[in-house]
Parts: sequence; structure tokens; C-alpha cells
Amino acid sequence: MKELAIYVDTNSNVPAYEQIYIFIRDEIIRGNIKKGAKLPSSRSLAEYLQFSRSTILMAYEQLIAEGYIEPSAKKGYYVLELERDFKGVKNVSEAEDTDGTASEGFEIDFSSDGIETEHFPYNEWRRIMRQVVSPENNELFNSGDPRGDLGLRRVISEYLMESRRVKASPSRIVLGAGNESLMMIINMLIDSGSVFGMENPVYPKSYMLLKGFGRRIVPVGMDGSGMLVTKLEESGAEIAYVTPSHQYPAGTVMSIRRRMELLDWAQAKEGRYIIEDDYDSEFRYKGKPIPALQGNDGGDKVIYIGTFSKSLSPAMRISYMVLPKALSVKYLRDGAYLGNTVSRIDQKAVEIFIREGGFGRHLSRMRKIYKNKHDVMLACLRKWKNTYVSGENAGAHMLVSVNNCMNSSEMERLAKENGIKVYPLDAYYIEEGEARDNRILLGYARLDAEKIEKGLSELARIWGL
Amino acid sequence: MKELAIYVDTNSNVPAYEQIYIFIRDEIIRGNIKKGAKLPSSRSLAEYLQFSRSTILMAYEQLIAEGYIEPSAKKGYYVLELERDFKGVKNVSEAEDTDGTASEGFEIDFSSDGIETEHFPYNEWRRIMRQVVSPENNELFNSGDPRGDLGLRRVISEYLMESRRVKASPSRIVLGAGNESLMMIINMLIDSGSVFGMENPVYPKSYMLLKGFGRRIVPVGMDGSGMLVTKLEESGAEIAYVTPSHQYPAGTVMSIRRRMELLDWAQAKEGRYIIEDDYDSEFRYKGKPIPALQGNDGGDKVIYIGTFSKSLSPAMRISYMVLPKALSVKYLRDGAYLGNTVSRIDQKAVEIFIREGGFGRHLSRMRKIYKNKHDVMLACLRKWKNTYVSGENAGAHMLVSVNNCMNSSEMERLAKENGIKVYPLDAYYIEEGEARDNRILLGYARLDAEKIEKGLSELARIWGL
Repeated sequence: MKELAIYVDTNSNVPAYEQIYIFIRDEIIRGNIKKGAKLPSSRSLAEYLQFSRSTILMAYEQLIAEGYIEPSAKKGYYVLELERDFKGVKNVSEAEDTDGTASEGFEIDFSSDGIETEHFPYNEWRRIMRQVVSPENNELFNSGDPRGDLGLRRVISEYLMESRRVKASPSRIVLGAGNESLMMIINMLIDSGSVFGMENPVYPKSYMLLKGFGRRIVPVGMDGSGMLVTKLEESGAEIAYVTPSHQYPAGTVMSIRRRMELLDWAQAKEGRYIIEDDYDSEFRYKGKPIPALQGNDGGDKVIYIGTFSKSLSPAMRISYMVLPKALSVKYLRDGAYLGNTVSRIDQKAVEIFIREGGFGRHLSRMRKIYKNKHDVMLACLRKWKNTYVSGENAGAHMLVSVNNCMNSSEMERLAKENGIKVYPLDAYYIEEGEARDNRILLGYARLDAEKIEKGLSELARIWGL
Repeated sequence: MKELAIYVDTNSNVPAYEQIYIFIRDEIIRGNIKKGAKLPSSRSLAEYLQFSRSTILMAYEQLIAEGYIEPSAKKGYYVLELERDFKGVKNVSEAEDTDGTASEGFEIDFSSDGIETEHFPYNEWRRIMRQVVSPENNELFNSGDPRGDLGLRRVISEYLMESRRVKASPSRIVLGAGNESLMMIINMLIDSGSVFGMENPVYPKSYMLLKGFGRRIVPVGMDGSGMLVTKLEESGAEIAYVTPSHQYPAGTVMSIRRRMELLDWAQAKEGRYIIEDDYDSEFRYKGKPIPALQGNDGGDKVIYIGTFSKSLSPAMRISYMVLPKALSVKYLRDGAYLGNTVSRIDQKAVEIFIREGGFGRHLSRMRKIYKNKHDVMLACLRKWKNTYVSGENAGAHMLVSVNNCMNSSEMERLAKENGIKVYPLDAYYIEEGEARDNRILLGYARLDAEKIEKGLSELARIWGL
């Protein structure tokens, strides 16, 4: 394929690279561009469409990340066969949404928890709070809608459509104080006999929550394209809990083929649902965030979960979910006696912050800040011998796999003796010892450049790299 | 009994009436004042102790409210026989902690939900928020202790000891976003086989929550002294959910004898616990708040629950519980992976508000405001024919029982047709139709004097009173 006649509207709000990406993606899905076809080189397409080469490369990066095409050794971009699994770019999820002050006793903690708080918009927030806490808003100081306040649900609805292509009418959005509160509601909506299938390695908090509810959970294996739907089918689970945008903790991006398989699996039987935990999709350093699985759902099978814990602050405890129609009806009938768990003052503040554009500006600022830390991390890690870094394209942690004849618990122990906390991936598997995964998680959101450099040079020394 | 040699320390911070009340109460418990004994008349005790008669009457009121003594027709105060049930002063619980905007379509809504928000301390709160939202507090914008922040747990611990005689070390306090979040944790801590016994009529939200968790619930009958412990024993329940300070919705104060029986019941078997929901104890118009059951618990059997929803605002969603030791250990081992669900900004604000004395001042102000509305309610209701008012001594709603040959659903319908919403007690029974209770709940927290007068005169007209 030499040329692709793509119409790009330069007056549109949608950036050119995104229009190009969407066009090619849709053509692949419709079958107009066949599997195995070679795309035009970035150079020739740039010339043909009269855009810079970097614009085309951004579009291609996005298609690669989502599993539609792959770069080949023969220097071209090939449309993927649906029969093949996509070895996705491994993305790393950002800080886990757990609380805890586990850093005690450690000089440097490479935790993936938490955020950089130095650049929280304190002044803007004070101004907004002054506006919110006012006798004119006195109705705000009583209880509100059990789903959360309509104003915030409206701006979230718009934000989700724009940034994640999630179809979410405000009436189907339910806010909750963290994953805890949302999972409590979901637990009530899902038949008590239903079994949950979870990715392995797993997002520990959701696993513990479901365990705590007395739910039966089966671990479902993954490959580089995400949860294995064949294994899910075998497991007998009715509910699939997945993190397709980038799996936590392994950082896998679920391929488009796997997404379709997963949706097909859910469609095949009544009572099957997919919980898409999109806990961290705001921070990516290559391409733009991958659209949510929910946007591809024609059959009302996806419960979509998102949060402001990473993008703003975990202190305010604002998460949200989008319910499929049937569950939304059930919720309004059986679940709306539950008061909403999110502070209405914070709800109003976030609503104003998003509506005024402050949230967008804050996200750009934070992307730059995390990108700087990320670059320092990579610069240090590239000096390590026999080390493979993955998941460096997103979030605020990466995975390192080092070949130094030590296992990860040995490395963890050595680090600890030197006042440094690291996180072996092994600990995230549901059945301990099932898979020996030697990778180590290193989070950097809360560390400054100096600490990162100091910590990593120390680790290199004690790990003999 | 003509005289009681009571030592009252006039230099103490404890008011004289309270010292007198405590002395007599303890003497009764120790058996030094025998059951059936007649206490000195208020006049003679006042003379003997050299205090005003109203001081003595306040002490006696408190003893009456708690079921230690009763006034008799023969014009004396008698220490109650433990064999007899105490027909307690019926108190009415305040606004139910549910959300909802059910007033739509009603001109006047006598809901017991919500609070009067006009007198929320907006200026003080803005000032505190300005202080809290600051780069100096940047650690506050990350996740905190799963139990809630230590600062707030400390002031709650002191507040509970002072105002409710609850023994609560900060380490055993867990904060949660409303009853919802606390019950989620409790549900995890209580063995999955355990059955919950609940008062009937019941606090609907807690009932729905436990139902939603898939818990088996048995309704337990009440009399004028609270939950019938003999019925509880027969029911086979392991967990007793009670509202002893004033039962919601019926307003009963649990007598001291019943409290002791209940504690004995819990002690008798391992795995038995009492959940004391002290959801509303701040607003009383006679005597001082009745000490919590938890304070009498020697055996670590009581889970104590409280909230700022009524005393401050339901918008912030701050509730708290005090765990008995064994459950606290279990929580720290198995439950602390759950992040706290309360906004840390609000936590800090409430901490400062209490510590600076603002909360105490706010409570006094609100007591006066509710007292005024309460007086308007009573003045109107006293004009009604064949009407018995109960639960008028506390909270922000009362119960009316009218004898007009209509049943309560008929009265509800007539009110509705005239744009007025009222709440038949019937609806609060677990097994519908089990007991035909014709009382009607009328809440007044959110209504101003004019609306109260208008609504009640309208009701009197349409109900023929």
C-alpha cells in the first residue's frame, strides 16, 4: 500500500494525528484494509497528506499501542492478523489506589502508591472552596442524589466521552469514595452466585475487596495481549475484572482482538459482565490514551470504573462508574437507598475545576512533571548491565528485569538492608509461587530527581549491575 | 427516704445536677438505694443540698429518661423494680441518614432527613479550608491511614469520652463515609454465618445495607424499654443492632435494665456482638444526652457507631466507629487494605473545627435553633383534638398518634393530595403488616416556623382534628 486517501479536517478540534489514527483504525475494523497489509511508510504518507512525519508517527504509535498494526524488522508497518496475538507495548499502571504509610523506616521508597503533591493547584482550590462554602450553596450541605451530584456527573460524562470515548449518560454514572465504595455497590448488583475471574497478577485491592465480600474468585492467566479469554471461558466465571488500558501491575495493553473476544464472551450468556477498571489512563508518554473497552460495547456488558485519585488527588476519594442499562435499572430500584459516599463539597469543587478548564491544565502540568521524573529514571536504568526495562511508556512506575543471578526476594531484602523499598512482581499473583516472576516494580511519583538518582545508583551497587 | 447525703463539688467542671444524677444512679446500681424506694421530693432534696429545685429536677429527669426511677401518680419518684419494664420517655431520633430528594412535588415535606443548613458555619469553614488547602499540608493530598487521620481520631476520642462516656482509644476508631462504609467494614469483620437481630420497627438504611450484603436478619420485637432480650435470645441472632439512646424510628430509650440484659446476652457466647448505632444523640431538650451503652461494656462486646451527619452536615459524609479489641485486631490484620473513604480535606477541617471549639459553639447554636422549631411544632400540635404527641424531647421530629377514625395510610394520602408529605411509622416494620402502628412521623429540621405552622394547620383541617 503506497497511499491512503485520508480526509483530514484542519479546522477540527480533533488533532490531525488523531483523525489519521481513527481513519486507519476504522478501515481495519471494517476490513477495508486487510490483515497483513503493509501501511505506507510514515515518510510517504506524510508527503502524500502534507503533514509532518511526526504527525504520522504519532498516529502509527497509537495504532501499535492498541494492537492494530505492528512495526516489522523489514522496516514497515503491517496490519495485524486477527489470528495472531499482539505483543502489546507494555504499559505500567500508575500508583495503586491503596492507602498506607509503609515508607516508615525506608530512606527511599519506590512505591507506586500516591501522587506528587507539590504541584497540586492549591491556590486555585482555595479560590474554588471559597466559592463553594457559601450560604448561597446551603442546599449543598444536606444530602444529595445517591448517585452523586448531577453537576459533577454531567462534566464527568463529557470528559469520559472526549478523553476515553466512553458512552456515559449522567444518569448511569454513580460516584463513590474510592474503589471500596463502588465495589460495594457492584457487589450488590451482581448475583450472589456469580464467580469473578481476575487477571493474574492481580490488582491486590480489588481482589481483597471481593474476597472480603465473600465472593468466589478464579485467577485467569494472561499473555502479552491481556487476559486469556479461552482460560476465562474454562474458569466458569460470570464476571471478568480487567484493566485493559494497562494491566495492573504487569502493564500489558489488551489487544483489540482480545477486547473483541472478551466482549463476545460477555455477549454469549446472560448475567455475564466485564468490569473495566480504567484506574489510570491519564499519564502516557507515547501516543494518546487508548480508548476504553466500554466504547466498543454494543451490548451493554461493561461496567466502567474511573478515578480522580491519580489525576488529582487520592485524598478526596472520588471515583466513578458507568453502569450498563440493566444494572442501572437494578441500582435505581434496589441500591439507591445507599447515600452517596463522596463529600459534596469536594464534588462541587471538582465540578467547577473541570468546567473552568483547571483540570485540563493541571493534567498537562502533571504530565510534564512525571515525564521529567520518568526521564531521570530511564537515564539511570540505561546504565545498568543485563537489565530489561518495561512499562516505561506510561504511568509513574516501570518494571525492571535484571539478570544478576539473584531472585527478586533476595534483591528486595538487600535493598531493604540499605533503606530502599522495592516491589517484586511476585507478590501480586493470586496463587503464590504459581508463576515465578522476577520483575521488580519501581514507582517514582513521589520521589524527586535527586532521590531517584541516589536510590537507583545505590540499587545498582548492591545488586551488582 | 427523706434525705440523700450527696457530696457536690461546686468547683468542679461537672454541673451540680450531673453530679447528683451520677451519685444516685451509682447508688442504685450498687444496690445502696433499693428498688421500690421513694426518693426525696425535689423540694426537700433541694433544701437539704442547698441547690435550686430546678437542679434537682434536672437530675431526676435524667434518671427518669434512663429508666432508673419513675414518677408516680402519688407524686413521688420511685426507684424502679428491676423486674418491671420501664415505660421510658419516648424520644424521637433525628433525621435519618439517607439521601434523597423526595420532596419533589410536595409543598411541605415533614421529612426527618437532613439538617437546617442556613446556620452552617460558612465563614468559619472557609477560614479553616484556607488553612487546610495549603502547600504546607501537601502530604494531606496523598492517601492516609486506612482508619482515618490520627488527628481527627484523637479529637473524636476525647469528644466521645466527654460527651458520651465512650471508651475509645484513637487506635480503635475507624472513620467511614457514612453508615454505608462502616457497615461494609463491619460486614467483613463479622463471621459470614452470623445472623443479625434488628429492632422492629427498624432503621431502614441499616436493614437494607445488611440485606444487600446477603446477611440473614431476624426482626426482634421491642417494648417501651427497647429490644426484648428474651426475643433476641430466641431468635438465634449473634449480632444485635440497636439504637439505645433513642430508637429509630420509634424513639424509645433503652432502659438500664435492658442494657444490662443485652450486655449479659452478648457476654454469654463468643462471637456475639452489639452494634450500638448512636446516630443522633446531640439534640435533646430535656436532661443531657444519655451515656452510650458502650461505656458500660466491660467485656469488649460493643461496636459503637457515631456520625457528624446531624451535628454538622450530611454533605461531608463523616461517620466513625469504635471497635472492640478483638475486632480491631482483626481489622488491622485483614481489613486495613481498604483505603479510608472520607475526604482527608474534610477530616482535617473537622479536626480543626473541634479542636478550636467551633464545634461546641455550633452545637449550642443548633440546639437553640431546633428547640425553637420544636416549640412551634408543639404549640401547633397542642391545639389538635384527640392527639397524643410522643418523642418530642429530642431530635428533630416527633410522633403523633391521632384518634380520628382514619388509618395512617389514609392520612398520608390526604396529606399528599394537599401537597404535604408525612411519614407513617407502619412503613418502618420489617415484616409488613405484622404490627399495625398508626403513628405518624413529623420531622421539622428543614422547615421554618412559617412552613411548620402552615403545614400543621392544613393537616389539622384535612384530618379533621
